[in-house]
Amino acid sequence: MSAAYFAEFDTVRYEGPDAASDLAYRWYDKDRMVFGKRMEDYLRFAVCFWHTFCWPGSDVFGAGTFNRPWLMGPEDEAAARAKREAALAFVEKLDLPFYCFHDVDVMAPADSIGDFRKSFALAVDHLEELQAKHGRKLLWGTANLFSHPRYLAGAATSPRPEVYAWAASQVRDALEATHRLGGANYVLWGGREGYDTILNTNLAVEQENFGRFLQLVVEHKHKIGFSGTILIEPKPHEPTKHQYDFDTQTVYGFLKRFGLEGEVKVNIEANHATLSGHTFEHEIAMAGALGILGSIDANRGDPQNGWDTDQFPNSVEELTLACIEIERAGGFTTGGFNFDAKVRRQSVDAADLLHGHVGGVDVIARSLLRAEAIIKDGRLDAFRAERYAGWSSDLGKNIKGGDLASIADMAVAGNLAPQPVSGRQEWLENLINRF
Amino acid sequence: MSAAYFAEFDTVRYEGPDAASDLAYRWYDKDRMVFGKRMEDYLRFAVCFWHTFCWPGSDVFGAGTFNRPWLMGPEDEAAARAKREAALAFVEKLDLPFYCFHDVDVMAPADSIGDFRKSFALAVDHLEELQAKHGRKLLWGTANLFSHPRYLAGAATSPRPEVYAWAASQVRDALEATHRLGGANYVLWGGREGYDTILNTNLAVEQENFGRFLQLVVEHKHKIGFSGTILIEPKPHEPTKHQYDFDTQTVYGFLKRFGLEGEVKVNIEANHATLSGHTFEHEIAMAGALGILGSIDANRGDPQNGWDTDQFPNSVEELTLACIEIERAGGFTTGGFNFDAKVRRQSVDAADLLHGHVGGVDVIARSLLRAEAIIKDGRLDAFRAERYAGWSSDLGKNIKGGDLASIADMAVAGNLAPQPVSGRQEWLENLINRF
Amino acid sequence: MSAAYFAEFDTVRYEGPDAASDLAYRWYDKDRMVFGKRMEDYLRFAVCFWHTFCWPGSDVFGAGTFNRPWLMGPEDEAAARAKREAALAFVEKLDLPFYCFHDVDVMAPADSIGDFRKSFALAVDHLEELQAKHGRKLLWGTANLFSHPRYLAGAATSPRPEVYAWAASQVRDALEATHRLGGANYVLWGGREGYDTILNTNLAVEQENFGRFLQLVVEHKHKIGFSGTILIEPKPHEPTKHQYDFDTQTVYGFLKRFGLEGEVKVNIEANHATLSGHTFEHEIAMAGALGILGSIDANRGDPQNGWDTDQFPNSVEELTLACIEIERAGGFTTGGFNFDAKVRRQSVDAADLLHGHVGGVDVIARSLLRAEAIIKDGRLDAFRAERYAGWSSDLGKNIKGGDLASIADMAVAGNLAPQPVSGRQEWLENLINRF
Amino acid sequence: MSAAYFAEFDTVRYEGPDAASDLAYRWYDKDRMVFGKRMEDYLRFAVCFWHTFCWPGSDVFGAGTFNRPWLMGPEDEAAARAKREAALAFVEKLDLPFYCFHDVDVMAPADSIGDFRKSFALAVDHLEELQAKHGRKLLWGTANLFSHPRYLAGAATSPRPEVYAWAASQVRDALEATHRLGGANYVLWGGREGYDTILNTNLAVEQENFGRFLQLVVEHKHKIGFSGTILIEPKPHEPTKHQYDFDTQTVYGFLKRFGLEGEVKVNIEANHATLSGHTFEHEIAMAGALGILGSIDANRGDPQNGWDTDQFPNSVEELTLACIEIERAGGFTTGGFNFDAKVRRQSVDAADLLHGHVGGVDVIARSLLRAEAIIKDGRLDAFRAERYAGWSSDLGKNIKGGDLASIADMAVAGNLAPQPVSGRQEWLENLINRF
Repeated sequence: MSAAYFAEFDTVRYEGPDAASDLAYRWYDKDRMVFGKRMEDYLRFAVCFWHTFCWPGSDVFGAGTFNRPWLMGPEDEAAARAKREAALAFVEKLDLPFYCFHDVDVMAPADSIGDFRKSFALAVDHLEELQAKHGRKLLWGTANLFSHPRYLAGAATSPRPEVYAWAASQVRDALEATHRLGGANYVLWGGREGYDTILNTNLAVEQENFGRFLQLVVEHKHKIGFSGTILIEPKPHEPTKHQYDFDTQTVYGFLKRFGLEGEVKVNIEANHATLSGHTFEHEIAMAGALGILGSIDANRGDPQNGWDTDQFPNSVEELTLACIEIERAGGFTTGGFNFDAKVRRQSVDAADLLHGHVGGVDVIARSLLRAEAIIKDGRLDAFRAERYAGWSSDLGKNIKGGDLASIADMAVAGNLAPQPVSGRQEWLENLINRF
Repeated sequence: MSAAYFAEFDTVRYEGPDAASDLAYRWYDKDRMVFGKRMEDYLRFAVCFWHTFCWPGSDVFGAGTFNRPWLMGPEDEAAARAKREAALAFVEKLDLPFYCFHDVDVMAPADSIGDFRKSFALAVDHLEELQAKHGRKLLWGTANLFSHPRYLAGAATSPRPEVYAWAASQVRDALEATHRLGGANYVLWGGREGYDTILNTNLAVEQENFGRFLQLVVEHKHKIGFSGTILIEPKPHEPTKHQYDFDTQTVYGFLKRFGLEGEVKVNIEANHATLSGHTFEHEIAMAGALGILGSIDANRGDPQNGWDTDQFPNSVEELTLACIEIERAGGFTTGGFNFDAKVRRQSVDAADLLHGHVGGVDVIARSLLRAEAIIKDGRLDAFRAERYAGWSSDLGKNIKGGDLASIADMAVAGNLAPQPVSGRQEWLENLINRF
Repeated sequence: MSAAYFAEFDTVRYEGPDAASDLAYRWYDKDRMVFGKRMEDYLRFAVCFWHTFCWPGSDVFGAGTFNRPWLMGPEDEAAARAKREAALAFVEKLDLPFYCFHDVDVMAPADSIGDFRKSFALAVDHLEELQAKHGRKLLWGTANLFSHPRYLAGAATSPRPEVYAWAASQVRDALEATHRLGGANYVLWGGREGYDTILNTNLAVEQENFGRFLQLVVEHKHKIGFSGTILIEPKPHEPTKHQYDFDTQTVYGFLKRFGLEGEVKVNIEANHATLSGHTFEHEIAMAGALGILGSIDANRGDPQNGWDTDQFPNSVEELTLACIEIERAGGFTTGGFNFDAKVRRQSVDAADLLHGHVGGVDVIARSLLRAEAIIKDGRLDAFRAERYAGWSSDLGKNIKGGDLASIADMAVAGNLAPQPVSGRQEWLENLINRF
Repeated sequence: MSAAYFAEFDTVRYEGPDAASDLAYRWYDKDRMVFGKRMEDYLRFAVCFWHTFCWPGSDVFGAGTFNRPWLMGPEDEAAARAKREAALAFVEKLDLPFYCFHDVDVMAPADSIGDFRKSFALAVDHLEELQAKHGRKLLWGTANLFSHPRYLAGAATSPRPEVYAWAASQVRDALEATHRLGGANYVLWGGREGYDTILNTNLAVEQENFGRFLQLVVEHKHKIGFSGTILIEPKPHEPTKHQYDFDTQTVYGFLKRFGLEGEVKVNIEANHATLSGHTFEHEIAMAGALGILGSIDANRGDPQNGWDTDQFPNSVEELTLACIEIERAGGFTTGGFNFDAKVRRQSVDAADLLHGHVGGVDVIARSLLRAEAIIKDGRLDAFRAERYAGWSSDLGKNIKGGDLASIADMAVAGNLAPQPVSGRQEWLENLINRF
């Protein structure tokens, strides 16, 4: 049944800015060199299972609106198999290299832990076949530790050790599956690792348990020889009132506390960044400065709406700044751009899934080309370098070697009276707009 | 001139809940024991200079509305002296033990660094006299590194070493003055330590300089024998688009990075907490869990307004939760409650300054008593303890000693199927409301 | 099955502030007189079907956690019947006078319009019996025009007339059922009356259709002789990006435009108010000033979360201000306090439903008593009256009779130089806190 | 002194997208035809006095950083004269047709009402000369009724009639000056027309007074024969907690209430729109649908900052949607694009003022050209028309002529079962991105 769902669409190809078709890439030319790499190798696009193949178009106020064939009948292994087939076929149709999944996305639901593991194992076997058949790879896997009722109060931060143990089982299997499927990374998003009310919450205990859990995952990764990167995905709120992995700097402090800053990086989502009071490019730049930039969940939020709307990216202006910061941070190693984005509830057709991804791919590709042009042009970086040039002066060097008193004495002895110097924000904004 | 300003008001005294006067304490009974301490010693209230004696009632859209005598003429040493006299007299009139200041709050303005230091030295001499005369103490001092045009692009994070050196001079003098005046703490609020546009900003350089600066301050503290606590005050935005000391967890990561987590604590402001997407009690609880709770800036924001309104606290409901978390964190050592709060621009009279402080003191005192009653009652803590009791079971202990695989095997072997257990949020909220 | 669900609980009764039981009213004493009415008659509490009996504890990130018996099997008439029985029994157990429902809340789902009407008719027959049996009344009914996929692009603002006609059918039946059941009001909440993207939206057409629809409802009300009030419930966002009924003033303008300001009032929800950038008391005061205050949906949002959390009210401080404004607006006529609130997803037990409602009832009752005490005290109103007293002076009266030039001339001729007068905000806040 | 300030800069001219100079227009080609008009005539750009010539670079946390010559000495008529000369010379240097001002922006401060009027009269005489000399026109004038301490509690909504009379005097003079100077519009922004606390506020009285004031202004306009448009500028918050002119729909309701919807239009500011929870294009579209679109204050806010940042516009993506809605609303008649934008506090140089305006002009010009291309292309409008086509069908027409019962019967009789149809949001977003 799933094969038919995308049958009417041709594989999406690069046709250039003047392409006639709505379903062609205008900017994503996978073999074009950018920053010294093939565009495909630089961007490492992935399609996600959950929004694109599992979500039925429901929201808090209404039922699903999509008629995906694999969602219309009983939730059994046949339906899960059909979903997996549709998914990998779709990724191939988009000619993108990667996909991502949670364990529960790819399998038939199962109640007992034994049945759960069996069902997931079937799914992994099948995914292995499908990867080969469709020539696609796994950017990252993860375990869903937030949807089942058992996780209502968290997983690694649950007050109950039974739940923690269940989570350990899911993570072990998902991590091992990711390893077996050749996944480049393994992600942990702490869906309900946070709290709803501080009244019933022991922050200290939960943080300790959470830190220990992450250590266990890292130890297990090494034990099984998984060479991918472990990633944490920050988010400030939702579904819980307060999520522990609030933003990049919070995660950094958490990693430092548990001695994991050399082991774990961040998977930054654009919409999570803006919900936490930061720009997307800020989170990337900060992760770069701290040496923990791992991967990206590409999407966008709505500036007027206070929840995670997970829309497809469509601003070249915003993504250009993100691409500049990714390049400044050295680009991706194991990470990439995963579309953690969903078509709108009114976008009920198969075609809409293609429009969403094609648009997102092109916006990012175009932004990357713009970022390259800006960096090659050099004026942006030159201005920035000049702005900090004083730190290479004698005074700058002396300050770096001084203590508070000696530095203060430099100011007094030199009778320093620094006058305001323009930061040239408007000129810089105009400069960027010309590209 | 300043003496007359508060002359009409009597010293504010505890008169109990049924007091007739508007300017009596109804709940703040300084000698009453609470959590094993005199209330005065537990709460350690302070009045701030900046909002209460320096601010003329101006805002972005209009001129000052207050007619404080010391603000009406030229800004010279006589005016500064009058302001200091009025301030310490006011603190005594409120019968509160502490005050707080920035260097520029207490001195006549001066242009050159030499004149600046002289002017500040005069102020410190005078404050020393006034402390003795009025029997008041210094909760903390700080240097204002954000109002002068030289700091337009930051102080320790300025692109220019001249500015950094000026900041070092101000901090050296302010820290030494705080030491001399017997201050209990020294605070750093990074007013413009952040950025307006990422386009002209080198985050990595600025963070390095910022961390080094903090190390210099800590080293100097030890060198001069200052035994007070160094505090950082987090804030997420304003005046810059992005402030580096975003919130408690951000500061914790920053301290860890620069090896200062045992040296520096946080001064948590209620309004800064809510602007960063947290509750006030969350920030306190998190600081407690991380061992870095230092002091409190008491005020409140407006939930509908997206800037720092710095209003006087007036919610017993909110402050009760804050007091519970302060007590859980062990209470203050060197810290206290500083009123970083300003009367409204329409509250133009001397009386309004008293109403603001008297109301704030009573709200916090009443909240502290409520917190004590709740903790003594025991049901809140008992419920919380019971909720995590599983971690003392055999399974809980085994998990703590296990690795990922062994824990996962416990779940599988035990065929664990944890069912939802109520978090009882509504019952807990009702329970709190009864006190 | 449903009878058993609440069987273990006794009817909740007033037992005073020192009640021993968690499930007693401490403040809601239904026969106590307040503002000249029995408390029950003043507050007119209602329990809602949707959150309390229909919602399974699901959210966007996870499945339902509640095991309500009527939700565990097939969604047929037997289950719907059991739900209705449980609901009315619950309202009686709480000893509250009213309940509220959407058509789809009380009936078994049905696909075709014919089956839908039959299913709803069965429900209405049964509700009529249950009202008599349990001695409960209907505060308001409404039609759910947002959950079914047909309404994905709105109902009265759908681009498609077929959908508009379906909505008309549901509203006709729900309005007539409300009439038959003796409902005091009929509510319209425009769940998806708004847009997701302006790119595919014709605002002008949608607004026209929306206005016409409301006229049709009002005409039909008169035709069938329904004497209750038609109410619109404002909300600014969610589920759509922009909701047309943004807030009270928006609704007022809409009513004026379509000539309905004498026919329709607002049902103000606390959480919707705060999401729209207003306080709850502001919305009530504004509706009072405009003569359109109808009814209240009692709940609260989370100041740190940007979506509709629909928590039970638990702040006496906030509700006191709301109660003052309700009384200033003349109190309710047909309206009342409906608990549009849901227990948290972790509050999985039947007991939690009781705790939520008992706490909410008591918070509001206590707030009402406080509001009465404040108004009886008179100082708040006296200060406010004095502040505007100038409008009764000669100048004030002359201004009211003048034109721009003559008023300007009064200022010039009088050489007016008004000096700032204190607004006494801090004193007023302290005053309120004493009650 | 002022003449020298911009002397080093040449007049800014259109030089095309490949211009070498930073201070050339790349897109704003004033004689180019767009939507049937010269670009200059369509966009009607204006420069504002307040941000560009009056603001010294101060903010709540720090002193002014700019060294504009006219701001450095005493605030006398000579300084005011120099400021006016600099301003008109600047507008000419930018080759933009219009400017805007508040009374206090252009005059030397004066205390008494007599002196105030004289000082303003001098300014108006001079502006008349300067308009002729520099060949510039006035887009709109206004009176500043919020900066002086007398207006601390509002102007038309002040509790005190003396203040109301002062406001009447300022508005009379500013309106007559605008008329004399040939201004195309007169604007009212209710800077402090709102409240800080509901505790001391009588909403009903303030709204009545506010409505009456607006009627007075309209009557005076007719009396003096001013043919320009009266405009209200909505804003939701800041400086007051709640501003009465919250957004476009609020203003519409207010106009309807006071019978002014045919007399007054809105001046929509981008940053005010986003602060009120709307997009800029939403506010324009809504004003268009209600027939009250007057003029635009061009700027932008910061999505992460909750206050009015008033930055120069720099997003072609956002402005394109705004330009589409302006054209859909019929374009401007008397209105235009006024730059209510300020350079950043770090942008201390004269050059920055030029960069800000040149960038803003070009962003809007480019957006207008994109809007024209999109509308000429036709696919956007065609899709939208098709989406609502059902309203021209028999069913649609019958619904328009029916009552609730007859429409409901159409649904029942037709056994209507409308299926979801895609809203194609992703395709539309992609389509827009191609231009």
